[in-house]
Amino acid sequence: MSLVLDPAAQDLLFREARTANSFTDEPVTDEQVQAIYDLVKYGPTSMNQSPLRVTLVRSAEARERLVPYMAEGNRPKTAAAPLVAILSADSEFHQELPRLFPHFEGAKGMFEGAGREGRAASAALNASLQAAYFIIGVRAAGLAAGPMTGADLEGIRKEFLDDDHTPLMVVNIGKPGADAWFPRSPRLDYEQVVTTV
Amino acid sequence: MSLVLDPAAQDLLFREARTANSFTDEPVTDEQVQAIYDLVKYGPTSMNQSPLRVTLVRSAEARERLVPYMAEGNRPKTAAAPLVAILSADSEFHQELPRLFPHFEGAKGMFEGAGREGRAASAALNASLQAAYFIIGVRAAGLAAGPMTGADLEGIRKEFLDDDHTPLMVVNIGKPGADAWFPRSPRLDYEQVVTTV
Repeated sequence: MSLVLDPAAQDLLFREARTANSFTDEPVTDEQVQAIYDLVKYGPTSMNQSPLRVTLVRSAEARERLVPYMAEGNRPKTAAAPLVAILSADSEFHQELPRLFPHFEGAKGMFEGAGREGRAASAALNASLQAAYFIIGVRAAGLAAGPMTGADLEGIRKEFLDDDHTPLMVVNIGKPGADAWFPRSPRLDYEQVVTTV
Repeated sequence: MSLVLDPAAQDLLFREARTANSFTDEPVTDEQVQAIYDLVKYGPTSMNQSPLRVTLVRSAEARERLVPYMAEGNRPKTAAAPLVAILSADSEFHQELPRLFPHFEGAKGMFEGAGREGRAASAALNASLQAAYFIIGVRAAGLAAGPMTGADLEGIRKEFLDDDHTPLMVVNIGKPGADAWFPRSPRLDYEQVVTTV
């Protein structure tokens, strides 16, 4: 056994966790989302940039506005999921660095110098890491996550966000319903992914 | 308790896990890396693209070639870590889609049509998700990860990879040594990160 993580936790987070395509009606509460955030906020980012922002689409009105931006095959499940979240990267993350990275005074100025495009690239990488931590966190709450990039993300930005926020994906969240899974697709072999020099 | 994940697992993966700045001499074995991969390979990517590639820098000669590409402050720990991995995104991931995403025959052709730049963008997002799963997997093996973007990544590409592979980060891996941690930096409050519409 090379892993020290409890096998039940391995199953919960990776082996048995699946991208759900249907959900029960059981609501996902703000307390659950807060517990997820309070766990995954500790996942590492470069210079503690923490650029991930989460928009919870809770109202029926907002859900109706979101669904048409999803790829057609994603619309029914996005309409039906107990909770839908838009995950985005904040290119103005550097404003928070004096608090988030206090031991390096020049951090904020460094990213001011990088300009919006430089910051957006850094925010995209680090918010993507945080999106993965968030997906793991949803699973840690006993819920299924359905992350989707099949959407008009630029349209979603204009409808729900602003120029500082770039949507990375939309995530359906809830308890898996009937026939929630497709068969598990194969994964690459270790030898195809890992090389040694 | 809103989370169902065992509290010890929460601590191992998030709350007590930290980016290590020093390591013991204990080696990290190929068996451990394989166990990490065999767990985290199940983390979701868009259309099961699975674009992450891992280059283990094991030989003294390769380590010597890598260290000068690291930012100065990252050199001593990269020189000293039991194992160093270069995580990269493979823009030719689509070649594997007939096997990885067999229920959609057009997948490979879709990404051929997207061109190298379109594939590189998709690979960057999805390999970043997988980089986060990998960091979580390192922790699941009872090891500390030290992910670093402070490096001449373009230089690392030329030295170790090829035009198809874009390095995302370098990760030091091992058992934490003496004074391995800086004090934990603050995280953003829930209200700063999560909004509801």
